[in-house]
Amino acid sequence: MYKATVNVTLRKSILDPKGKAAQHALTDLGLTNIDNVRIGKLIELDIDADDKDEAFDIAETACSKLLANEVMEDFEIEIHEN
Amino acid sequence: MYKATVNVTLRKSILDPKGKAAQHALTDLGLTNIDNVRIGKLIELDIDADDKDEAFDIAETACSKLLANEVMEDFEIEIHEN
Repeated sequence: MYKATVNVTLRKSILDPKGKAAQHALTDLGLTNIDNVRIGKLIELDIDADDKDEAFDIAETACSKLLANEVMEDFEIEIHEN
Repeated sequence: MYKATVNVTLRKSILDPKGKAAQHALTDLGLTNIDNVRIGKLIELDIDADDKDEAFDIAETACSKLLANEVMEDFEIEIHEN
């Protein structure tokens, strides 16, 4: 059994309205030295695979088919043994 | 200028309906060897601070005041020099 940790982040060129809203709220709370906020997804998958490479391939398929929108988002996969 | 990477994850005891929905959808897509999916947030902050410790404190305040709900979520902060 492997655990995959997937970081899904909006591409640099894409505006992040959720992050902007959070930044404004933080400024209102007095945290004025936070200049930029970007909010992405952190996805953890438990994968039943024979080896690390197979687990990586499964995670990659899951990302491109469902978990990430590759037009707007980048993803990074890390595989750990469980 | 420092960059903080914050991982916000649902506590183990809390049900994750978004993750469950993603897992069912992945099963429908034929990815039957993914046993569990949990979806959290990955937040990146640009922080204007004098040193790493100050940046960490600012990120921690931002998390407890706004970015994470500590009743249901855990957070982990990493500070990198920019």
